[in-house]
Amino acid sequence: MSIAELTESVRAFAQERDWEQFHTPKNLAMALAGEVGELLAELQWLTPEQSATVMADAELGARVRAEIGDVTIYLVRLCDVLGIDPVHAAREKLADSARRYTVEAARGTAAKISADHPPAS
Amino acid sequence: MSIAELTESVRAFAQERDWEQFHTPKNLAMALAGEVGELLAELQWLTPEQSATVMADAELGARVRAEIGDVTIYLVRLCDVLGIDPVHAAREKLADSARRYTVEAARGTAAKISADHPPAS
Amino acid sequence: MSIAELTESVRAFAQERDWEQFHTPKNLAMALAGEVGELLAELQWLTPEQSATVMADAELGARVRAEIGDVTIYLVRLCDVLGIDPVHAAREKLADSARRYTVEAARGTAAKISADHPPAS
Amino acid sequence: MSIAELTESVRAFAQERDWEQFHTPKNLAMALAGEVGELLAELQWLTPEQSATVMADAELGARVRAEIGDVTIYLVRLCDVLGIDPVHAAREKLADSARRYTVEAARGTAAKISADHPPAS
Repeated sequence: MSIAELTESVRAFAQERDWEQFHTPKNLAMALAGEVGELLAELQWLTPEQSATVMADAELGARVRAEIGDVTIYLVRLCDVLGIDPVHAAREKLADSARRYTVEAARGTAAKISADHPPAS
Repeated sequence: MSIAELTESVRAFAQERDWEQFHTPKNLAMALAGEVGELLAELQWLTPEQSATVMADAELGARVRAEIGDVTIYLVRLCDVLGIDPVHAAREKLADSARRYTVEAARGTAAKISADHPPAS
Repeated sequence: MSIAELTESVRAFAQERDWEQFHTPKNLAMALAGEVGELLAELQWLTPEQSATVMADAELGARVRAEIGDVTIYLVRLCDVLGIDPVHAAREKLADSARRYTVEAARGTAAKISADHPPAS
Repeated sequence: MSIAELTESVRAFAQERDWEQFHTPKNLAMALAGEVGELLAELQWLTPEQSATVMADAELGARVRAEIGDVTIYLVRLCDVLGIDPVHAAREKLADSARRYTVEAARGTAAKISADHPPAS
């Protein structure tokens, strides 16, 4: 299934339930944030190292996968109502980031961060 | 560009900059939440109706599109390190939701919500 | 009960359960975000107008109040481990905002927003 | 300054700028989430251990403190429009959590988590 087909499925799901009336960009952005909050809750007490093996735990892995599913559903639904292709928007942003964070400068920063401090966000 | 190709591009971007060391699921989930927070900030003072036409404003539309790009980048990067196909996870979750919220029950709820109150989340 | 007394109570609660080991600023910030996500979920399908009367609904009001309680608990716990007085930090930030958004300029912006568009965040 | 006095100051700040029209619970919850997102962004690439000493870094510490200020401002403003005393709501929730997570059960869980896995959230 492509992301375009998923978008169609989510749209049909909303239409069949008469939920389009609730699906404004504002409301969907809140729903997206709520699902990301549930994802954070699954990972909050784990060390970064523990989080790296989270999918090896059947029960926890299934919960994380379900949250990723929810986040993706609301993201494609939001993009559908906004008329944005998320992959295209990401590709543009990545090209922009490549200009702002050149490989040379970024590698130096990473080395410094590892030894010392975090990057400014 | 497919979502698989985007995933490859984002992975290469991180590898070239020696940023893989920072890309644990825990850290990436935080980054995803941070970007969703920026998206919320663009929409927070708008009415739901104003949010529906946000892309008609060139400047604001460009900012919303850039935030969607950032959210998508961190979502595919997170899925890459977790080994989850986001579209597949979404499809499974949608099938699960279809069982929990049947069309008949959901339509009735929507009518009640419109007239009265919000759905329990 | 003052905020200082609440901070003491939350600290004792964590100490008694041997949970201090999990209470790093990073983890607590994630927990705070997770609780704010639950708050958003309660309000996401409401219109702004419906949200203004949310406390008049006994069941929904109780849920919103419980989420506010959770958000406050994690905020004071986070401030405790960071050594920050949240009220003092807020007061400083408010003074800073007063300099950046003068009454005259802000009133004009509000009038424009109401009629037209959102403020840049 | 008490939390009640801070609430008064934030209310006056909004009134003077004619911003009360934007301060519905829905909008303020989004603004709160946006500020928590900025807080996450400051901590996202840090290890939990690095996050524990974040206030020792003058520049980063000042940014974290400013974000805590923003989060607190929106939390008290949201509580003001909802008519909720945040400290009282937190105290109630803490009493509720004390019943659900007894010291004995929680200490055992913490020991297990440290050695093995995260708590279900």
